[in-house]
Amino acid sequence: MAKIRVLNREDIKKVFTLADALKAVEQAYSEKNSGAGEIWPMVFHEFEPGKADLDIKSGNLNGKGIFGFKLVSWHIENSAKNLPTLHGTTMVFDIANGQPKALMNAGPITDYRTGAAGAIGVKYLADKDAKNLLMVGCGALAPFLIAATLLVKPDVQKVVLANPHNPSAAAERLGNIAEKVEKLLKESGAQLSCTITAEEDIETAVRNSNIILTATPSRQPMIKAEWVQKGTHISCVGADLKGKQEIDGALFASARAFADDTAQSFDVGECEIPYLDGVLTAHCGEIGEVINGTVAGRTSAEDITVFDSTGIALQDLASAAQILEAAEEKNIGTVVEL
Amino acid sequence: MAKIRVLNREDIKKVFTLADALKAVEQAYSEKNSGAGEIWPMVFHEFEPGKADLDIKSGNLNGKGIFGFKLVSWHIENSAKNLPTLHGTTMVFDIANGQPKALMNAGPITDYRTGAAGAIGVKYLADKDAKNLLMVGCGALAPFLIAATLLVKPDVQKVVLANPHNPSAAAERLGNIAEKVEKLLKESGAQLSCTITAEEDIETAVRNSNIILTATPSRQPMIKAEWVQKGTHISCVGADLKGKQEIDGALFASARAFADDTAQSFDVGECEIPYLDGVLTAHCGEIGEVINGTVAGRTSAEDITVFDSTGIALQDLASAAQILEAAEEKNIGTVVEL
Repeated sequence: MAKIRVLNREDIKKVFTLADALKAVEQAYSEKNSGAGEIWPMVFHEFEPGKADLDIKSGNLNGKGIFGFKLVSWHIENSAKNLPTLHGTTMVFDIANGQPKALMNAGPITDYRTGAAGAIGVKYLADKDAKNLLMVGCGALAPFLIAATLLVKPDVQKVVLANPHNPSAAAERLGNIAEKVEKLLKESGAQLSCTITAEEDIETAVRNSNIILTATPSRQPMIKAEWVQKGTHISCVGADLKGKQEIDGALFASARAFADDTAQSFDVGECEIPYLDGVLTAHCGEIGEVINGTVAGRTSAEDITVFDSTGIALQDLASAAQILEAAEEKNIGTVVEL
Repeated sequence: MAKIRVLNREDIKKVFTLADALKAVEQAYSEKNSGAGEIWPMVFHEFEPGKADLDIKSGNLNGKGIFGFKLVSWHIENSAKNLPTLHGTTMVFDIANGQPKALMNAGPITDYRTGAAGAIGVKYLADKDAKNLLMVGCGALAPFLIAATLLVKPDVQKVVLANPHNPSAAAERLGNIAEKVEKLLKESGAQLSCTITAEEDIETAVRNSNIILTATPSRQPMIKAEWVQKGTHISCVGADLKGKQEIDGALFASARAFADDTAQSFDVGECEIPYLDGVLTAHCGEIGEVINGTVAGRTSAEDITVFDSTGIALQDLASAAQILEAAEEKNIGTVVEL
């Protein structure tokens, strides 16, 4: 019988930081493009349209010696029952013999790996001298994106929060977000050494920034092409379903655009609508190609670069593999016979 | 946090019998055809052709209030490492809120539910006076198929074992198989009350039988159409991959044929080749329709009936749901926070 390690939310928090997530996500992107990582077809089932659905995203990651899946279900009526609307479960298996190795609560992994994804875009595509970061959107992901970006760009001097759909929320959420950013940095052995402020006017905020992160459920572009300064990098994290769009499609006429997964980016990502409109016909490449050095990222200090992060199973698997290694080393979690 | 019950091989043996599997499989077939049960698209991945692969079969079973999956990986080189070549893992989730409920070793479930599947074909399609059972194939599944059939047809008088690809094996394996049949019947509160013998000549064996179960990896038909007596029922369990075939395609010219899943039967089941050859153009129905009374099964004592059991995820899910109910009631297994 195989022994399997079960890791719940608290266990995972003991062994996983944003610094770990950054390493894992970078490896996931790299392996996707080297061929060592593969994404298998997604299973999607709608229990009741607009009320409850589920997906199973799976794949293999040879560099970590594992395969596995993340199953996420969404039940909107759970909130009335005092239950989380999302449940995420990840399992990791040994690629050499098929034995199950771990079962994890995928909830805490998702926020970390998504924050890390936006930051990997910044690490590989932002100008080396970019120091003004704008976070568009003040939801749960904002602190993860900000902190992960500060880890890859420790010389950022200014962080500005904006929330175009409800502008006053940026100032209201500022305290909570700053506190959470400090906590996340501390977990990774770093400190907050720049200012975090709120800005109600999105145009002003965009004009004064050279790194922009977007994480909203927007279905209308919030950022006009003419506001974006030369040399700016934008990591778009919000669009993950058909019809979602955060930035002006016109930006893609001149920007250097990259995706985590080309097909998914055109299908459900930030690039879906510019692609349908014919403004964007092809990406410069996938971020994994930039990481692996097979495609150039930024080519000058003037380039506008965009990273469309749609989310791929390998990010979760690489994170889960890293969590499992650390949990085994520190003997965290519950080991059961399966 | 959700509490999840982990059930290993030994736990499952404490709460699951062939009688339970028969109930579960019958419900699975019935719900598939009433629409209460649905099969989701299968994920299949080949790590190395002919050496290692994997599938994830998933679905929902509303009558049991669950959804879930079975993940089965196959690594042929495991035997040299003293590990099982197959690893099966099942998870069960609450359909009302998406919470994970149980993680199980799927290994022991598969044998029981496959034995039960062949027997459900006998229960609904064999002639009421049929008393002579032939088991073709002497592998691991044989005792499960025989015992499950004896549970649904307690007036069977004679069981004969035959193994056309290696005829002497039937006599060699007889003792072990009879012992295992007795054990399986005992688990379900029944007793062996008929003879079990071996027959080297497959033609003689077929001519003297009116219930036939086949469970071999054959790629050549073993049973000729002219040997099969009027009124016989055949449950074919072996064919689950393209190219496998156990019985003469000519049988389908006059037989009443049924499947667990029509599409899968024509794609990878016993009916694949007769369908490609044009001998069989349509099934009479799925077994769930016979169970639900919407399609007639046997229409006379003269009919030859065939049940093509290809294996569907709902059999595993219904079995897992039943195991979980019993394990919760008896507090078997290990409960962990996820």
